[in-house]
Amino acid sequence: MATLRVPEVVPSPTQDCEKLRDAVQGLGTDEKAIILILGHRNASQRKKIRETYEQLYNESLIDRLNSELSGDFRKAVILWTTDPPERDAKLANEALKAKKKGMKQLQVIVEITCASSPNHLQEVRQAYCSLFDCSLEEDIVSAVSLPLRKILVAVASSYRYDKELVDTKVANAEAAKLHEVIKSNKLDQDDIILILSTRNFHQLRATFASYNQNFGNSIDQDIKSCGKGDLESLLRVVIKCIDTPEKHFAEVIGEAIIGFGTDEDSLTRALVARAEIDTMKIRGEYFNIFKTNLDGAVTGDTSGDYKDFLMTLLGARI
Amino acid sequence: MATLRVPEVVPSPTQDCEKLRDAVQGLGTDEKAIILILGHRNASQRKKIRETYEQLYNESLIDRLNSELSGDFRKAVILWTTDPPERDAKLANEALKAKKKGMKQLQVIVEITCASSPNHLQEVRQAYCSLFDCSLEEDIVSAVSLPLRKILVAVASSYRYDKELVDTKVANAEAAKLHEVIKSNKLDQDDIILILSTRNFHQLRATFASYNQNFGNSIDQDIKSCGKGDLESLLRVVIKCIDTPEKHFAEVIGEAIIGFGTDEDSLTRALVARAEIDTMKIRGEYFNIFKTNLDGAVTGDTSGDYKDFLMTLLGARI
Repeated sequence: MATLRVPEVVPSPTQDCEKLRDAVQGLGTDEKAIILILGHRNASQRKKIRETYEQLYNESLIDRLNSELSGDFRKAVILWTTDPPERDAKLANEALKAKKKGMKQLQVIVEITCASSPNHLQEVRQAYCSLFDCSLEEDIVSAVSLPLRKILVAVASSYRYDKELVDTKVANAEAAKLHEVIKSNKLDQDDIILILSTRNFHQLRATFASYNQNFGNSIDQDIKSCGKGDLESLLRVVIKCIDTPEKHFAEVIGEAIIGFGTDEDSLTRALVARAEIDTMKIRGEYFNIFKTNLDGAVTGDTSGDYKDFLMTLLGARI
Repeated sequence: MATLRVPEVVPSPTQDCEKLRDAVQGLGTDEKAIILILGHRNASQRKKIRETYEQLYNESLIDRLNSELSGDFRKAVILWTTDPPERDAKLANEALKAKKKGMKQLQVIVEITCASSPNHLQEVRQAYCSLFDCSLEEDIVSAVSLPLRKILVAVASSYRYDKELVDTKVANAEAAKLHEVIKSNKLDQDDIILILSTRNFHQLRATFASYNQNFGNSIDQDIKSCGKGDLESLLRVVIKCIDTPEKHFAEVIGEAIIGFGTDEDSLTRALVARAEIDTMKIRGEYFNIFKTNLDGAVTGDTSGDYKDFLMTLLGARI
């Protein structure tokens, strides 16, 4: 369900590094070669390339790319080349340190904590401590006020069971509990936070399905009718990232592209983060929501090497 | 500060396994040999012994010990030989599944979550998911009612920054916040839980010191004067396990030994869990609190191989 295309026969890390070296050395930079190599390697292959490059040339590949490339293309290639847990720790930190911390920033934290595997989130927390000399949760506490703080700390601290195991009775009981809390408009109640932050993703999807079936509306609709405040918005993003991450990211990409100007940072983040996970599904959801083609939309709103790189991640360039 | 004594020249895992095999095979079991080997190996050495034993004899060392030994000695040797994260996951599960869940059971969860390193706790959470098909937090939620549930889930979910980094301003500010909350008897307030579950151990110790200095009483005394309920007790254990784990474990051992009968499970748990961490400090604290010698107390209340094994962990047998 990913769109990343890795060749059947992958060159050795040394071969890749030699070509990357040629691409960044001398006059001018061969962006096409960089896209052709890095845009077709998965996370563990990119890791080996980083390590081999460092050994062979005694310099960091990321630093070199940073000095050779520019603009949105540089940002995208560097995010893609950074180890995923470190990348997400940096994205989370950037969001928490932003001057304006609206839902656009907070949803980055939700994506990392609710649309990633439990082990990935754990690695992000470790990377965060190494990079920023404090824990992710401490920065959430100092950057976000209550009640949003409570929800974000809880999902950031989660380490959910990671197998597909659903207890239908629990799903029905917790759907009823969620319904009760939402109907009485107590969205920051401890019960709702404990359910959303401790249950495994499959269990929660069953709970949301039971909610819909037993109470006529989706949980998203019912929270929406509680109000348009930040608490409602945040909970809706949490639920969407758990229930249908592909829908969430399709919307992020849509918002980044549609209308005046392009939000390249959001577009890059979504495609880089999901190219190895579910960009194929995101493509389908994008069409469902916006009645237009994701590839066409990205092509229409970007240009040059940046466009070529994103389209490579989307599997449209070989 | 540990009391475990590992010989300067450690035999190879194969040599150890051959001796262990001799000790468990044939008529009778050589308990002395088992103590002599396992009681003088650290966690990573024991891990290699377990792996080598499995390879050499195609059976689990733990299963074999389980069928050869008996009573409190068996329990202690098996706890000691089990990988520490798995051991703590099992102890936590046992505590949460106990019919009666008083402070004695809940303090086991607090020890594992507040008196262990952040990485160890993370490994415990992973082991818990593998062993019990749900997360530690889910079992806390179903076993413990509010408000204790909130506190235990928060500390169990923590992944604290792990270096000695203290911000004195933050310590003073958070000591004041804690004081305010405690003075108004709102012990389950979100602020207090967030502080206790997100800050690093060194920072929290500075906060408790600042509390003492600025408000005349220790935080423990002030919580104590809020009441004698479970909430007060649980918070006091949390704070003690963070601030002075050696004091907490000295008290656990004291309670296990002093008075009528012995609580072997608690005694074993404390010594097995801490023999590689701070039993030397616990010995000192024990003397401070009970005005008597820890080694003498343990010797007086235990007997046979069980006694020999515990005294080996305490470094009193070579």
